[in-house]
Amino acid sequence: MASASNPIGIFDSGIGGLTVLKALREKLPHENFLYLGDTARIPYGTKSPQTIKKYLEQNLKYLAKQNVKAVVIACNSASSVAEEINFSLPIYDVISPGSRLAVEASKACRIGVIATKATVLSKSYVTHIQKIKPHVQVYQQASSLLVPLVEEGWDDDPVTNLIVYRYISPLLKENIDTLVLGCTHYPILKPAIRKVVGANVTLIDSGFALAKKLTEDLQQGVIMANSKDLTGEIRLLTTDSSDTFQANAKRIMLPLEIKPLEIVDIN
Amino acid sequence: MASASNPIGIFDSGIGGLTVLKALREKLPHENFLYLGDTARIPYGTKSPQTIKKYLEQNLKYLAKQNVKAVVIACNSASSVAEEINFSLPIYDVISPGSRLAVEASKACRIGVIATKATVLSKSYVTHIQKIKPHVQVYQQASSLLVPLVEEGWDDDPVTNLIVYRYISPLLKENIDTLVLGCTHYPILKPAIRKVVGANVTLIDSGFALAKKLTEDLQQGVIMANSKDLTGEIRLLTTDSSDTFQANAKRIMLPLEIKPLEIVDIN
Repeated sequence: MASASNPIGIFDSGIGGLTVLKALREKLPHENFLYLGDTARIPYGTKSPQTIKKYLEQNLKYLAKQNVKAVVIACNSASSVAEEINFSLPIYDVISPGSRLAVEASKACRIGVIATKATVLSKSYVTHIQKIKPHVQVYQQASSLLVPLVEEGWDDDPVTNLIVYRYISPLLKENIDTLVLGCTHYPILKPAIRKVVGANVTLIDSGFALAKKLTEDLQQGVIMANSKDLTGEIRLLTTDSSDTFQANAKRIMLPLEIKPLEIVDIN
Repeated sequence: MASASNPIGIFDSGIGGLTVLKALREKLPHENFLYLGDTARIPYGTKSPQTIKKYLEQNLKYLAKQNVKAVVIACNSASSVAEEINFSLPIYDVISPGSRLAVEASKACRIGVIATKATVLSKSYVTHIQKIKPHVQVYQQASSLLVPLVEEGWDDDPVTNLIVYRYISPLLKENIDTLVLGCTHYPILKPAIRKVVGANVTLIDSGFALAKKLTEDLQQGVIMANSKDLTGEIRLLTTDSSDTFQANAKRIMLPLEIKPLEIVDIN
């Protein structure tokens, strides 16, 4: 039976989900978090739905064994297959709240989505957005190189700006006024993306949208909230060790200090 | 018991190893080949030695069950941990023949190596090269973005030229006269790499070097050669399905026509 002090599990294929953890931690400082990054099989976004589903199930099973009280799927590629999964605990994915926020933001009803190949092929954002508001036009662009660029640490780099421009300019030609950052790595590239889209396009950070939704559910008792007298703890687990990963995790989580990563075997 | 008509197994983390298969096929048209690409867990080059070793063992076990008569490890990152592995069949990796060819080519005894992070950290090329000729200077450069660029199909692209220049120019400053393409994806980028290094640096394609070594061993009976009256068959297996993969495989293997990829579950 889930207790209020049990952690909220956060799953991602790698470090990108730390941007979601950071947003959650800021809104929910009393909650305990258990982060699991499947770095041994990263990336997910270039793989097939069948393979992503298999990996997601293994990771969810592992988190359930660690007595989490709910699971956040911080990875968009994994979120895009999450609806097909049976799971005993509350699951939060990034696509539903991100879609809702995008629809609220777009006055022109023209929304762009940049995401991994897997997320684009799943059409999850298109389906979710048009379910909320059927006549919204959604323009998608697979942007496979952005994840490796972030992992290489080139987020502030002319080469990255060039690649971001290549991916986003076709969307700007469609006169979008809102752009969904449909991969948890992309908020790290916000300065580069902002340079390309200019001041008049609203950027939607799905992790931020999800943090808002989860906060509401904790306030309303959908999930039991931890005592407000406590300061939450954060544990970071990964399926593969890496110095780069540790360094990147530290950088993303600043100014929060993090404990060393723990390596786990999930299958 | 291995028979002469049994296929030669070729293992790679993805499609890069097809450049090795192509080199082998050209030299050995009578041999049967069974190619296995672990696309469900690609890339290997950003992962830890422990994880790469675990994956390599699973793939080798699978190939052994398919009655291959020898195994070629076409992936440099996997080759970099291959020495620690016990296996009942002859194993050929790309690092030893690549190192030998580089030493033969370098008059200045100054060799550059571009490779994945895993291969660079393993120092396998440095160790092998200096074992053959101790006073050779070896300069390494991890080039993590080159694999995703090839997989994105941007091999003939100004952005790729820019990134190749970024990685290789520090090596040129060291006055290398020979550059090892230490990842099986990189021969696909040969035109871009040639533009950066100019005409006076010898490019070493480890797959080509390996094909030479394997041909010698078949001629000398170290491995039983298939009858010269037969035309070899090629089967391509991968651990994940992907249309991009099929298209890229077709492109790399040209003018040879290939059969559709078969999807297998190796663990």
